[in-house]
Amino acid sequence: MEVKTGTLLSTINYPADLKKYSEEELEQICQELRQYIIDVVSVNGGHFGASLGVVELTVALHYALNTPYDKLVWDVGHQAYGHKILTGRKDQFHTNRIINGISGFPKISESEYDTFGVGHSSTSISAALGMAVASHYKGEKDRQHVAVIGDGAMTAGLAFEGLNHAGIEKSNVLVILNDNCMSIDPNVGALKEYLTSITTSKSYNRFRDDVFNVLTKLSELGPNAQKYVKKIQKSIKGTLLKQSNLFEALNFRYFGPVDGHDVKRLAAIIKDLKDIPGPKLLHCVTVKGKGFALAEKDQTKWHAPGLFDKITGEIKKSIPDKPQPPKYQDVFGHTMVELAEANKKIVGITPAMPSGSSLNIMMKAMPDRAFDVGIAEQHAVTFSAGLATQGLVPFCNIYSSFMQRAYDQVIHDVAIQNLNVVFCLDRAGLAGADGATHHGAYDLAFMRCIPNMTVAAPMNEEELRNMMYTAQLENKGPFTIRYPRGNGMLPDWKRPLNELQVGKGRKICDGEDVAILTIGHVGNFAVEACKELNSDGINPAHYDLRFVKPLDQELLHEVFTRFKNVVTVEDGCLQGGMGSAVLEFMADNGYKSNVTRLGIPDEIVEHGEQPELWALCGYDTQAIIQAVKKIAVSRPTKIMAS
Amino acid sequence: MEVKTGTLLSTINYPADLKKYSEEELEQICQELRQYIIDVVSVNGGHFGASLGVVELTVALHYALNTPYDKLVWDVGHQAYGHKILTGRKDQFHTNRIINGISGFPKISESEYDTFGVGHSSTSISAALGMAVASHYKGEKDRQHVAVIGDGAMTAGLAFEGLNHAGIEKSNVLVILNDNCMSIDPNVGALKEYLTSITTSKSYNRFRDDVFNVLTKLSELGPNAQKYVKKIQKSIKGTLLKQSNLFEALNFRYFGPVDGHDVKRLAAIIKDLKDIPGPKLLHCVTVKGKGFALAEKDQTKWHAPGLFDKITGEIKKSIPDKPQPPKYQDVFGHTMVELAEANKKIVGITPAMPSGSSLNIMMKAMPDRAFDVGIAEQHAVTFSAGLATQGLVPFCNIYSSFMQRAYDQVIHDVAIQNLNVVFCLDRAGLAGADGATHHGAYDLAFMRCIPNMTVAAPMNEEELRNMMYTAQLENKGPFTIRYPRGNGMLPDWKRPLNELQVGKGRKICDGEDVAILTIGHVGNFAVEACKELNSDGINPAHYDLRFVKPLDQELLHEVFTRFKNVVTVEDGCLQGGMGSAVLEFMADNGYKSNVTRLGIPDEIVEHGEQPELWALCGYDTQAIIQAVKKIAVSRPTKIMAS
Repeated sequence: MEVKTGTLLSTINYPADLKKYSEEELEQICQELRQYIIDVVSVNGGHFGASLGVVELTVALHYALNTPYDKLVWDVGHQAYGHKILTGRKDQFHTNRIINGISGFPKISESEYDTFGVGHSSTSISAALGMAVASHYKGEKDRQHVAVIGDGAMTAGLAFEGLNHAGIEKSNVLVILNDNCMSIDPNVGALKEYLTSITTSKSYNRFRDDVFNVLTKLSELGPNAQKYVKKIQKSIKGTLLKQSNLFEALNFRYFGPVDGHDVKRLAAIIKDLKDIPGPKLLHCVTVKGKGFALAEKDQTKWHAPGLFDKITGEIKKSIPDKPQPPKYQDVFGHTMVELAEANKKIVGITPAMPSGSSLNIMMKAMPDRAFDVGIAEQHAVTFSAGLATQGLVPFCNIYSSFMQRAYDQVIHDVAIQNLNVVFCLDRAGLAGADGATHHGAYDLAFMRCIPNMTVAAPMNEEELRNMMYTAQLENKGPFTIRYPRGNGMLPDWKRPLNELQVGKGRKICDGEDVAILTIGHVGNFAVEACKELNSDGINPAHYDLRFVKPLDQELLHEVFTRFKNVVTVEDGCLQGGMGSAVLEFMADNGYKSNVTRLGIPDEIVEHGEQPELWALCGYDTQAIIQAVKKIAVSRPTKIMAS
Repeated sequence: MEVKTGTLLSTINYPADLKKYSEEELEQICQELRQYIIDVVSVNGGHFGASLGVVELTVALHYALNTPYDKLVWDVGHQAYGHKILTGRKDQFHTNRIINGISGFPKISESEYDTFGVGHSSTSISAALGMAVASHYKGEKDRQHVAVIGDGAMTAGLAFEGLNHAGIEKSNVLVILNDNCMSIDPNVGALKEYLTSITTSKSYNRFRDDVFNVLTKLSELGPNAQKYVKKIQKSIKGTLLKQSNLFEALNFRYFGPVDGHDVKRLAAIIKDLKDIPGPKLLHCVTVKGKGFALAEKDQTKWHAPGLFDKITGEIKKSIPDKPQPPKYQDVFGHTMVELAEANKKIVGITPAMPSGSSLNIMMKAMPDRAFDVGIAEQHAVTFSAGLATQGLVPFCNIYSSFMQRAYDQVIHDVAIQNLNVVFCLDRAGLAGADGATHHGAYDLAFMRCIPNMTVAAPMNEEELRNMMYTAQLENKGPFTIRYPRGNGMLPDWKRPLNELQVGKGRKICDGEDVAILTIGHVGNFAVEACKELNSDGINPAHYDLRFVKPLDQELLHEVFTRFKNVVTVEDGCLQGGMGSAVLEFMADNGYKSNVTRLGIPDEIVEHGEQPELWALCGYDTQAIIQAVKKIAVSRPTKIMAS
């Protein structure tokens, strides 16, 4: 794919090249950078609106700062495409998010300009403060440390913790608040309303000047007036101004709001701020999707639109010739409405992922029973616990890797109290192009060690629906359902709801050579594998455990009584996952079969398409076939365990 | 133990009894309640200063509210002794924190007045909001929902997330900020400074009134003055007041600060606040340890002082007749200083636990290299990651159960980037009297599934020191050292520092019947068990793994080649823990030994002394002996595996 760059951008590979241009030329560079992002993302896919929104900020930062000596931390990082293009990766940008290509997020190992690996939100202030304190300790007084964080990311507790600490350190930290009123979905919460009140009412700094101007005029009215004015000035200076802005209350010097699309002014301000020591915050107002009209208009849709026609804005969808199975997330969303209509106790909770989780379907249908609580996974879980104490049944939907953020709340607020909260972990297993930060690799391991917890994973949409139906029945306690990113198996997914017996798996097919035990969607790989193996004369049995906790003891007794060779398959980490649970059962019951465990190995898995990664990690259909054949070959005669 | 109650308190068992008294009598009730807490805690132990500080608040809340219909959530809960005494547990209070006695924290299963189980900080706003939203949904408009939260707990991100959401809900939530400037140690951070500025400067509300009074006087000076005054009033009303207080910025109505020891006024205010709908915050200023002079003076020492003479204040210490081994935490603290003196890259981080972790030793010796970041585990880890990117070696000390709060930060910010952060997890394993919320039960399972992570546990103080020494050597990547609450084994603990080979265990004693594999301090139970078993003619081998990750492959090959029967012992959960790691090794290498795993079972373990709990859970010395004997008896002849 050949994408042309503009005249100026074609000469820029690193910030040093950018610095050769005059301030007057920055606007054209921004225009060319924006166009390049549109050109490449339209044919390549990836995040879109966020990077368009910070084009000017990106150019201004690299123009005004001395990167990489100065440390620039992008929060979340899906807005860092411009940054990547300006820091040595313009020619690799077309490999963005592709296996063995560059990452969709900043990554330390990729470039010295990427100071901190990101993906999850709200880490930037803490990370930049760590760098700043290190610089302070090393006596590098001239070094700048900048965190660029969105107003959505600012709602997460971690960001507040970072502000609270930064406010008392003497280190040189500049927080740039990129205020576009959006997370992936519109941002919510009191902070958002506060920021809106700042940006829509008279500018805070101008207001302060105005009041003082009027007071000066008043004091000219005579000695009596002067006396009163002094009183007011003293009070205002002593108390009110110290407390007059949320960020100033936390010891940050506050600047703004400024237009985040005025590149010249931004560059000048950032230069000026270098001379101001200590913690400071620059409030920039930007438009997500800036410069691409449709993206400005429907910001959620254009967060990551897939491929599109950059002229017409038509989003390209392959037109299937037959009905396609739905995404798991949509099955979740529709089933929520169906269940909630029948059970008035059900409520839905999402931390800032209405569209990502498809809880927006319920939010639209039942706005008083579905809550977007902002980027706040910890709160989402403890809030759910509070709801559950009053007899409601909250379905708390959190991506598997984001659930790592609320682990203590799951243990401390839900599991210890045995509350009936249903955790729906979307994007469980390898998540694809978002890469290492977004893979839901560890949830089976970290959830199954929690007492009182049920852990289930559906093999298809019908199973997901039945697990959701089962979880909301009386007194089920904490109940986790984890399911993958992407599409399911069943075009006719909307089947009647049935209760599943908790802790009961099922035999998918009987066999005699080897038993394959699966959990979740990888069961479908096993089905395919069995078909191929059958045609080779090998007849494995296949069991779908459905539940990693509690384990189906009866099923496992059958398996280990009958089979000397067992293969376990999971879309999760091998350390402590389903396979390990099965080994624990074996040890506790004295079974001695050979167990081959397939799953995510003990290493950081990078980005790529899901099928590529499943193959790479060795648990797709072909890998299962190989594993079974290896056993069958090494034991050429059919073996039945005693 | 017989402890007398005062005249009025003796008639009060439930809030209904309290309500029979006049407002005038509340002060005496407070006095008697305070004395009762002093009387019982002095001979029984437990948390002390926090409950004394909220005596008036406790009485006022139960007097003014209609508990348990109204929902009262205590944050952390170690301040809830007065609450327990007034809600049906006066006569059980002497069993506080004792096995099978009442819990040291509120607990749903203990009383209908305990609306939410607590122990970890900063959950109360989210939980109370959940209850309030449930009430709103159910149409229970008269129900009150109150969260009592300290200024220390308010620094944690979860509290901020709760405020951010509560600020946009119409639900009826009252947050009472119990501002005593303390966590266990003095509170730190920008928020603390902000609160101090509010409470030490002229009262915010009075200030606001004052400014308006002066403006009124100014406007009386003539029409010109009137014009200007109107301008100012409009500006102030429109902009400044909306933004003039951190909590008002988040849509909370702010009241205070008020004297938290004026019980009559508190009761009146709480009654008044019932009529104000929506989110509101009452800022109470209290003194931790109030009413016990020594506790007021040294608040950290008297947070949980142990037993003491309630007249003289002398803290009772048993006087040992020979040198005692130190606490693990003190070995950590002293060794930090020793290591940091030699390695300038080392820094120390604690989230609000300087005295609990003994990092205060380093904070005193090297104040610029040891950081208390407030109750902010997430930030502590990401801040450490930021420090590590700049080549420093942060030792981040977090209690095992609190590390559950920073799980994503460990994965996302440290492990994925393979940064050299050393995590020292104090209070790992069963933590004793603090109970279920504080047991560090899960860390081996949730840490060992993370790629790049090393997980070690010392058997004694010397091992802890050597692990710390090893962890700070070059390029070790993320390195976890987990160790228990309480004292070690070695009075002469300060031995020379030696590098350990990562992933190498050691043979403690050879044997022939059974191999015992241990990790961490339970290795000492095994040493004792071996002695007793030897005297019975049974000779187990004992191996200390030292590392759960990476496992010592060579050692395990030896074990499983030689021993048909293996017992694993760990002070951690059986699901996914060390025993499971060993089973994974076995499965991967085709070994077939019998493995008996001893550790924390899959249930919530309540409070008690550590030895009681180790016995209860079946992995103390006697339990190991039983496990080995059971094997030896079932196989009467000595067996050597092939």
